[in-house]
Amino acid sequence: MAESWVNYAERIGSDLHLELSGPGSKRAALIGALRDAVRSGRLAPGTRLPPYRSLAADLGVARNTVADAYAELVAEGWLTARQGSGTRVAERTRPLHPAVPPKAPAPPSPPAPPSPAPPPRARAPHRSRPTLHDLRQGTPDASGFPRSAWLASYRRALHQAPNEVFGPGDPAGRPELRAALATYLARARGVRTEPNRIVICSGFAHALRLLFKSGSGSGSGSGSGNGGGGRRGQTLRGPLAVESYGLPFHRELLAAEGVRTVPLPLDEHGARVDRLTRERAVLLTPAHQFPTGGPLHAERRAAVVDWARARGAVVLEDDYDGEFRYDRKPVGALQSLDPERVILIGSVSKSLSPAVRLGWMVLPERYVGDVLAAKGEREAWASVLDQLALADLIVSGSYDRHVRRMRQRYRGRRDRLVAALAERAPHVEVSGVAAGLHAVLRLPPGTERSAVGAAVRHGVALDGLAEFRHPDTDMPAHDGLVVGYATPPEHAYGAALEALCAALAPGGTRVS
Amino acid sequence: MAESWVNYAERIGSDLHLELSGPGSKRAALIGALRDAVRSGRLAPGTRLPPYRSLAADLGVARNTVADAYAELVAEGWLTARQGSGTRVAERTRPLHPAVPPKAPAPPSPPAPPSPAPPPRARAPHRSRPTLHDLRQGTPDASGFPRSAWLASYRRALHQAPNEVFGPGDPAGRPELRAALATYLARARGVRTEPNRIVICSGFAHALRLLFKSGSGSGSGSGSGNGGGGRRGQTLRGPLAVESYGLPFHRELLAAEGVRTVPLPLDEHGARVDRLTRERAVLLTPAHQFPTGGPLHAERRAAVVDWARARGAVVLEDDYDGEFRYDRKPVGALQSLDPERVILIGSVSKSLSPAVRLGWMVLPERYVGDVLAAKGEREAWASVLDQLALADLIVSGSYDRHVRRMRQRYRGRRDRLVAALAERAPHVEVSGVAAGLHAVLRLPPGTERSAVGAAVRHGVALDGLAEFRHPDTDMPAHDGLVVGYATPPEHAYGAALEALCAALAPGGTRVS
Repeated sequence: MAESWVNYAERIGSDLHLELSGPGSKRAALIGALRDAVRSGRLAPGTRLPPYRSLAADLGVARNTVADAYAELVAEGWLTARQGSGTRVAERTRPLHPAVPPKAPAPPSPPAPPSPAPPPRARAPHRSRPTLHDLRQGTPDASGFPRSAWLASYRRALHQAPNEVFGPGDPAGRPELRAALATYLARARGVRTEPNRIVICSGFAHALRLLFKSGSGSGSGSGSGNGGGGRRGQTLRGPLAVESYGLPFHRELLAAEGVRTVPLPLDEHGARVDRLTRERAVLLTPAHQFPTGGPLHAERRAAVVDWARARGAVVLEDDYDGEFRYDRKPVGALQSLDPERVILIGSVSKSLSPAVRLGWMVLPERYVGDVLAAKGEREAWASVLDQLALADLIVSGSYDRHVRRMRQRYRGRRDRLVAALAERAPHVEVSGVAAGLHAVLRLPPGTERSAVGAAVRHGVALDGLAEFRHPDTDMPAHDGLVVGYATPPEHAYGAALEALCAALAPGGTRVS
Repeated sequence: MAESWVNYAERIGSDLHLELSGPGSKRAALIGALRDAVRSGRLAPGTRLPPYRSLAADLGVARNTVADAYAELVAEGWLTARQGSGTRVAERTRPLHPAVPPKAPAPPSPPAPPSPAPPPRARAPHRSRPTLHDLRQGTPDASGFPRSAWLASYRRALHQAPNEVFGPGDPAGRPELRAALATYLARARGVRTEPNRIVICSGFAHALRLLFKSGSGSGSGSGSGNGGGGRRGQTLRGPLAVESYGLPFHRELLAAEGVRTVPLPLDEHGARVDRLTRERAVLLTPAHQFPTGGPLHAERRAAVVDWARARGAVVLEDDYDGEFRYDRKPVGALQSLDPERVILIGSVSKSLSPAVRLGWMVLPERYVGDVLAAKGEREAWASVLDQLALADLIVSGSYDRHVRRMRQRYRGRRDRLVAALAERAPHVEVSGVAAGLHAVLRLPPGTERSAVGAAVRHGVALDGLAEFRHPDTDMPAHDGLVVGYATPPEHAYGAALEALCAALAPGGTRVS
């Protein structure tokens, strides 16, 4: 039976507890964290806890500290220990509560009888299949979130905020954040802009919607605004050219807004921008094609900007992981070639966390008014306090430090992936540049489906390349796996890699 | 010339600085806060500072403390003092920066020559006319935001958060917040629900969009999602019956989603729900009709639920200020009459701040799936960290304390408004129940426009009732002013009230 302790440290958040407690109190902190996790239901009854050694290594504490903590909690009735099956969460703990903060350090009480807890929500954020090793693309290592730095920035921002911050917000976003981003993006991504051409949004999806939806027409004077429903004042209109491989979610979102997407083939130099014809806009991932992993060739970068100039069109640059390049300095943003022809869209969803719902659009001047009209008369989306915190995080240098730290971490993971596959599954090629939070493993033709199946049987969740293929493309299909090596917490990556290699090793697909 | 110090304390946020500093350091804290405010541009060159006595009273410090601080800053060159024109911000301060936190306490330096600062954004969140006294409806007193309590909750929530919080979020919202809201809304508003039927959103406008837009169709399997743009999987369809007076913004938002709104007349018992016919949904403000101010009569509450049951329709309950009733316990939510026929929508925009972009929908079971599908596969909107902080604020009791405090404050303001008008402008009637953050002043027929004009000439920003009238209604128009008495900070309310009375006093409209 599968052990469910892989994401263990994630669930108890004990790293933070330990980080915050002084030396000598680590045992107490660990006990408290574990007790909270059981009491709140974050560690479910029956869950097997990790071996002392693993948890001790993950948390950077002595093995005895973990052993002591387990023993204490067994004595209190929260855990059970049985020869041969390790330490587990006691089956009959108190009724599950949502993880609200306990009012006071509750005295250890004997486990209560089970109560008719509501069934867990059937709907999982991704898929319903439980997995041991999450290698799906799209998420940074959640355990790497810089809690202390974020909290320090949030505190400073809240202290320094003038009261007007708590009133209705400007839909462009807080000036502090737009100013910080203008400077940061110039330095880190070569973006050429100014704060007045940056509009804050809640992420990439929101940016796409703002570009393709009609303005809300909040002008005074018209007054009516009733009836009709005709789309007026749209910033951009479809059809939109896209890369033949990309996120299905983006295509679906655009379809819901009535925008038809037209696939451009990809080759070893990136998107075939020479195939652009009558479209008024193209969506690209120039720094690191998603998901196939190559950069857009310099000549094509120039060519697509020329095309946009010649046709009065615009390029949407999805700069989703531009800060993460491992073999060289990142390629600068395409936007720098022509700030009047390229809209750059970025967010903190990869660099920091998708839980911080903040993104930005760097706009040609002529689009600013329409985008703001589409966004509404006041800030109705992005948390103003988080905006101020992010501004402080950037200005204080903490954001840079965090990105450097995560770059190092992900680079190490990619290196380990490449080395392990070279040894264990030499028929699998890691393609694309050394960058980002994911890699594509090229497979021999016709083997993708069986490779995904083998991964699943080894407890590994990931996607085949086919999931990302545009349904209307005529380019030849490639077999491959998209591996999100950033997703697991640090302590769990080794096991995930091991399982992946076992699945892909010659003969691995025959394991049942 | 108009003095612009009314919103002074707001802009410098000095109350917080003082709150945080220990006794004895108030002078230094005030000097620091003022210096920062000038340096950052929050206090513009030429701005006149408040008299010692006013600021001392507002901040709860000795008059000498303020006098000392002013003198110090005059000596440093940040301020100027001249007989007869009071103390002002020096005209030639350093170039304006966005209000980013200073890296270190900069040494006082002599004012630098002016630089070509970028022109301020022409687009103000509301209107471009500068005002001294902001009595526009819609916003709580921004100076009342519970910074300390919010920060404490945020810190606790961040410490206790399991790592998965920083991964992709469930579009329903954090379970901690949904559980806290289910309990709170039952207690405070009589709502009958459970966490699984609450969906978190970024405010009322987002809720309306989620109800009337098509689902994003993010199901696996279909894969395509391309082309078409036909609206499928909408939760609700128009036309939507609305009250004849309401926020134009809501009508415009609905029109942009293709939803026609049909106005119901209002009388002394609230919306004429007997006029409902073929509509499938009606949007009401039952606790406190917005803006006219009356509650929906008990018989009509029952009648509209009966109508919804008989016709398979649904009532949208906009519970925008339900916690603020001053003469009695608040009327419970209409939702409690039939949780399967009423969708309750609420947010913290009035109770806490519109800067915290969080709201909620309490849904009949059959709508939960569609709303989640419309919201998307992951949380793409509401800040997950703010969700956790709000859950803690509610569970810890801080939210209740804050609401009680603000209720007392607003009640006092309404009482002062009523008393002042009775004395100074007895022809003006304050209508509606003692509740909420605004009042409607009924005026003699035909006098609304001149009253608004008089208010503007007295430096008061507010709206006439005509702004809120549905263009298609056939009910007779009423003349009136909508006064947002919650909007100014506490220290500025007296002056705002004085100006309003001067404008409305017999003969006041003749001031030019």
